[in-house]
Amino acid sequence: MDYHRRLDTELDVLRDRVLVLGGEAEAALGRAMYALAERDSAAAREVLEGDDAIDRLEVEIDRLCIDVLALRQPAARDLRFVISVAKITPILERLADHACNIARVALDLNDEPRLRAFPDLSRMAAVASSMLRAALDAFTRGDAAEARRVIGQDDEIDVMYERLFRDLIGLMVAEPAATPRAARLLFVAKHLERVADYVTDICELTVYMTEAAIIKHSY
Amino acid sequence: MDYHRRLDTELDVLRDRVLVLGGEAEAALGRAMYALAERDSAAAREVLEGDDAIDRLEVEIDRLCIDVLALRQPAARDLRFVISVAKITPILERLADHACNIARVALDLNDEPRLRAFPDLSRMAAVASSMLRAALDAFTRGDAAEARRVIGQDDEIDVMYERLFRDLIGLMVAEPAATPRAARLLFVAKHLERVADYVTDICELTVYMTEAAIIKHSY
Repeated sequence: MDYHRRLDTELDVLRDRVLVLGGEAEAALGRAMYALAERDSAAAREVLEGDDAIDRLEVEIDRLCIDVLALRQPAARDLRFVISVAKITPILERLADHACNIARVALDLNDEPRLRAFPDLSRMAAVASSMLRAALDAFTRGDAAEARRVIGQDDEIDVMYERLFRDLIGLMVAEPAATPRAARLLFVAKHLERVADYVTDICELTVYMTEAAIIKHSY
Repeated sequence: MDYHRRLDTELDVLRDRVLVLGGEAEAALGRAMYALAERDSAAAREVLEGDDAIDRLEVEIDRLCIDVLALRQPAARDLRFVISVAKITPILERLADHACNIARVALDLNDEPRLRAFPDLSRMAAVASSMLRAALDAFTRGDAAEARRVIGQDDEIDVMYERLFRDLIGLMVAEPAATPRAARLLFVAKHLERVADYVTDICELTVYMTEAAIIKHSY
């Protein structure tokens, strides 16, 4: 195989592994929110057990990036792609960490009486998941316009977060006995807000990779 | 200048810029905690105003990394150093974001009656700051043993966090009127726990860079 075909094959492998990692992170998030909503502790434990595989995938992608840089010394757009992959993997791994933290909250809460439902929480999770899916798709297709659209959705998340914060504090003040449980849901809301921030970071990298422009910190 | 001297000079510049960024992040964290403890809103606003400079520094370091990779194509340890720098800068930038979030909490709380002091909060901040300083030092010196020692300190942070969580929930249950304020301090504790996690990430990169071993997820 000549240099370019070898490089292209390696870049395809990288792209594929990032998609697998992103898919795992998204599945972990969905499963953790399901465990919370349905009080399903088995699902929560699955999320926690799956985290090792995600960590291994991150390490594998890191190695692939270093190998491509060291052996092929890619230039221009290919170089930016490899750097972007190296930067996206820890984001996806941390995103999966947030899913684990939500799963831990689910395990804690499943032992206690059920709180009233907070529909904004599942709405936030649904928006965050769909943002993540769209962001990964935009990254692999190198679609900067779509990445910019996803960044815009972050405002929705912020609005839902603020409303949840007020509602949960209101519940704690009105029913002190519910405070330990409501505080845990407050953290879930915070985790989901963070997930959306990470998705925004992925989108910024996509724009950077495609346009070689750094939009970060400029909107 | 020949290739090696040019590369060495550029790596020195990178090392220097990372130290400046780390110093700024550490200063922001210290100032935010001071603003919270001393109810000093001017200090809190300084932290928020300083964030732009930190963002610009991150963008500058990213550009330097890409330039070194594209123009000098460093190998082995030098390559790992550049990749580590590219991975450390977003961590430091996010660490400074947490400082900003703490500063925002300080601004919110300074308008309200003072809560009783939670000494664990300043202790957590002091440990997190000293971990950050030691981690940056270990990174620039390539001292893997010191990086491993810093990682070990994360347990202290976790113990303080768990105690704070219990104390603050206890306060909320006992005094519902204090709940909105106590919930904000709960977030400060969470931010500090996150800061320590980021410091651990920096230490893992240091070990990786020095020993080419990936210790992440293996301890």
